[in-house]
Amino acid sequence: MTVAKMPKETTKFRILSEGARIIHQKGFNHTGIQEILDAAEVPKGSFYFYFKSKDDFGLQLIDFYTQFVDSMAESQLSSSENSPIERLKSFFRTMMSAAEEQGFRGGCPIGNLAQEMADQNEAFRTKVREAFRRMSDHIAQCLEEARELKQVRQSLDPRETADFILNSWEGALLRMKTENSLEPLLVFENMIFNGLLEP
Amino acid sequence: MTVAKMPKETTKFRILSEGARIIHQKGFNHTGIQEILDAAEVPKGSFYFYFKSKDDFGLQLIDFYTQFVDSMAESQLSSSENSPIERLKSFFRTMMSAAEEQGFRGGCPIGNLAQEMADQNEAFRTKVREAFRRMSDHIAQCLEEARELKQVRQSLDPRETADFILNSWEGALLRMKTENSLEPLLVFENMIFNGLLEP
Repeated sequence: MTVAKMPKETTKFRILSEGARIIHQKGFNHTGIQEILDAAEVPKGSFYFYFKSKDDFGLQLIDFYTQFVDSMAESQLSSSENSPIERLKSFFRTMMSAAEEQGFRGGCPIGNLAQEMADQNEAFRTKVREAFRRMSDHIAQCLEEARELKQVRQSLDPRETADFILNSWEGALLRMKTENSLEPLLVFENMIFNGLLEP
Repeated sequence: MTVAKMPKETTKFRILSEGARIIHQKGFNHTGIQEILDAAEVPKGSFYFYFKSKDDFGLQLIDFYTQFVDSMAESQLSSSENSPIERLKSFFRTMMSAAEEQGFRGGCPIGNLAQEMADQNEAFRTKVREAFRRMSDHIAQCLEEARELKQVRQSLDPRETADFILNSWEGALLRMKTENSLEPLLVFENMIFNGLLEP
């Protein structure tokens, strides 16, 4: 069963969502399996029924995040009610609200794992790479549509621009953690939408 | 004695530079003091003569990095031989070469510490925040000059643009680690210099 089809009440879902919450706060290496199991109120045997190892858990956690981003991107970026640029803005606005609710801590769970694990573990690196590429694909589709409608600068390549937007967003989230404020995300929004993309 | 004035042959310099190298590869939490001392060929007593604790070492390491970036920025960004935009390009080109030499691993030492430590330790957060602000100041000065010479889009605010460029660079370095290629840095260069800044 893929993560995407996993019912929310299953034990596996509980382990993943509690693990996601703790790892988002403390990092992957700093989080112990026992701590996740205690939070999920699940015996150790259950963990090893679903996950071969802590690394296997980490890799499945990336799928878990990707599934979340995918469903958010599909509902917000693919809707045809608003213009593609409005959809893209609203997508980032939603994530900005989430960042504010979390007191500007945590940042991007996938970005954190990339920073912490990409150099240490090849399986993590390729898994996070795919997660980023999927995120970039969602943005690129939106930009492609905006380009056809002449709502963005025509000289921009949608794919390259999508990669740049995603990477800049990751950098803005990193900076947010050091400034402890929304400012880096607002600067991102202004520079992308009123600067780079402006036709 | 400040880090900036520390002679290269001192024991303290050796501890900091070996620590910088190992922490860049493995992260701060994953690196033990003993490992640094072994690499620096220094007895444990010397460490505690210069540093109160591992955290104190980490904070002084941020000064060590900042001093390095400062001297690089001063030599490359303040030179008056080339235009401010050419200087800025060449500054990032130098860092791109370094990233390539390191096989696209490691990324930004200050960005890594920000990601790993900002949420965990308030002293690290404020120290890294100051390091980023200094980096941004160097870029802002260059952009201010470029703006007076009408070499960049006049509607851009130099300070905000400098913050955005720095954050996007940090994000590009993060993405580089997952793609294991120079591509995200080349995309950064193209988007900033041929897109955002273009008059």
